[in-house]
Amino acid sequence: MAGRVKVNLGDRSYYIHCGVGLLAEAGRLLKPLKLAAPCLVVSNPTVAELYWPQLEQSLREEGWQPHLTLVPDGEEAKSLKVAAELYDACLAAGIERGAAIMALGGGVTGDVAGFVAATWLRGIAFIQLPTTLLAQVDASVGGKVAVNHPRGKNLIGAFYQPAAVIADLDTLATLPPREMRAGLAEVIKYGVIADAAFFEYLEENIEKILTGDRELLERVVLRCCAIKAEIVAADERENDLRAILNFGHSLGHAFEAVGGYSTYNHGEAVALGMVAAARLAVRRSSFSPQESVRLVNLLQRTGLPVDLPPLKAQALLAALELDKKMRHGRLRMVIPERLGQVKITLVALEEILPLIS
Amino acid sequence: MAGRVKVNLGDRSYYIHCGVGLLAEAGRLLKPLKLAAPCLVVSNPTVAELYWPQLEQSLREEGWQPHLTLVPDGEEAKSLKVAAELYDACLAAGIERGAAIMALGGGVTGDVAGFVAATWLRGIAFIQLPTTLLAQVDASVGGKVAVNHPRGKNLIGAFYQPAAVIADLDTLATLPPREMRAGLAEVIKYGVIADAAFFEYLEENIEKILTGDRELLERVVLRCCAIKAEIVAADERENDLRAILNFGHSLGHAFEAVGGYSTYNHGEAVALGMVAAARLAVRRSSFSPQESVRLVNLLQRTGLPVDLPPLKAQALLAALELDKKMRHGRLRMVIPERLGQVKITLVALEEILPLIS
Repeated sequence: MAGRVKVNLGDRSYYIHCGVGLLAEAGRLLKPLKLAAPCLVVSNPTVAELYWPQLEQSLREEGWQPHLTLVPDGEEAKSLKVAAELYDACLAAGIERGAAIMALGGGVTGDVAGFVAATWLRGIAFIQLPTTLLAQVDASVGGKVAVNHPRGKNLIGAFYQPAAVIADLDTLATLPPREMRAGLAEVIKYGVIADAAFFEYLEENIEKILTGDRELLERVVLRCCAIKAEIVAADERENDLRAILNFGHSLGHAFEAVGGYSTYNHGEAVALGMVAAARLAVRRSSFSPQESVRLVNLLQRTGLPVDLPPLKAQALLAALELDKKMRHGRLRMVIPERLGQVKITLVALEEILPLIS
Repeated sequence: MAGRVKVNLGDRSYYIHCGVGLLAEAGRLLKPLKLAAPCLVVSNPTVAELYWPQLEQSLREEGWQPHLTLVPDGEEAKSLKVAAELYDACLAAGIERGAAIMALGGGVTGDVAGFVAATWLRGIAFIQLPTTLLAQVDASVGGKVAVNHPRGKNLIGAFYQPAAVIADLDTLATLPPREMRAGLAEVIKYGVIADAAFFEYLEENIEKILTGDRELLERVVLRCCAIKAEIVAADERENDLRAILNFGHSLGHAFEAVGGYSTYNHGEAVALGMVAAARLAVRRSSFSPQESVRLVNLLQRTGLPVDLPPLKAQALLAALELDKKMRHGRLRMVIPERLGQVKITLVALEEILPLIS
């Protein structure tokens, strides 16, 4: 059981493979890329313990010479310091042009490994092997890679497309339930921004999806990847259309930041950001209260937070001002028009404050 | 007196302006780019003392809010550490998307500033204001930006096109003669790789060019930029054609490295690299001895070194193995076929050693 989605980007087009047992197939699936034998696999201790043996075997069977390098678990891996360590690892492993860097793990691992792939020798092949739902539906598709600046997330990065993505659904079985729910926040986002029928499908099946049903998960992951692939293909460098993928993220990043990146994980913060954006849209009478309630209900059934925490205006402003979506002092924000359609609008900070106080 | 060359890269096309008095015109020339008012100008102490006042005035007159940041003179500025300081400077100066980073200086300044522009907020507008002949004819055109790894030059970087290049010929008047000659090494390179008539023009006029004649220099700089622009437009990411720009560079980088980056500057090392490549081509009977002599003579008249220094094989191999032009243990090297035409070939290390011992 496996499917794939093509991301159409001319001579940089690539495939997203999704299904069960795919890590054990990685060597074979990646063979058509004709890459050099030595490759650097970037992972973290938790994921590597679970999945490195089968990935290594699969790669070696097809003639690769994989070198495993571990980065720390969690956001601290997304630093210039860790990137510098990975450059050293590239040198030690003999990663020349024509070779690849592979990321085995979640979004953090993919982000820092991708940043290094984008900049080592001015860019070499990058392979994503996402092991979390969040990374499978979001982080591994679309080519955004980055590390953090001490004062803000993702401030240092690039747009850099992978050469292939392999999403093995088996890896979701070991995912902590909280991480699973975080991934579903992004899944729900795709319904709101682009596909009302998919949103309804989630309303009908969310409890079964939460049990980890592989068949439903494959459908969900592939649909999300297809939506994102279409958006990215139409607007690779986020000039306009692509910005709708940030639905829930502008305020979400702020909720993450003021919580010190520990109170809420990324998906939970995005859930709160979507609730805030929906509420703002309802206040502007551009989104119906009924649809806003449907969104909040679905997030709640998924086990995601929906009650906006009261925030000090100053803290929120400080976080927002570091956000890359600020333009001339106003926040560029995505708000819903109806389920399946959103628009981008400039929001004065005064309009946001009443939502969170 | 001014001319310009367009680099055709679709929606990332840009102009190279070349002439006298252009720094004082920068604000006006850059106005059509419609960039945000705050901008970061990266320079080094020597260049900033000479040219910052007129650049600042020109920018302020057109409504920009330029922030000057200095990086060290010389190769040490091309480090991740300096890049990290520039990210801090971006944050302090309020460099948002839609704003620009400008590099005022030579190739080193442009390389590190360009790397930061390529990665800050996943890439913002980058303006090159090259003040050395080398940077004007080579480093500022083509979109290669990078910092060094402690164990090799330019190992960390990107392909990132500037939004505009402004080459003010007045800045060459303050250039030390040795730097001027280094730039002419790259100028001579363009004749060999792409334009036999231009090579003859240089043979006829090299002494007058060395006196700093502005009219000849404008013609020389514009011709070099036009040649490079054409090559880059046809092959932006160095798949094949673009690699001919590396004529003299593979062994040149090695001469630079084994000299500890102090015995030879970049242009001098490239001159030696071209001599070595020509000698190798003559040995292979793919380049005439007469044309090889013409190349060596022109380099000599320019005041560039042409006697290959004896090198320990081991040191050369160590330097070569770090070069990004190695493929499966062989060196990808550009060698001349005739003046105005070169080809790319794979060279075993055993073939190189006799040249330098």
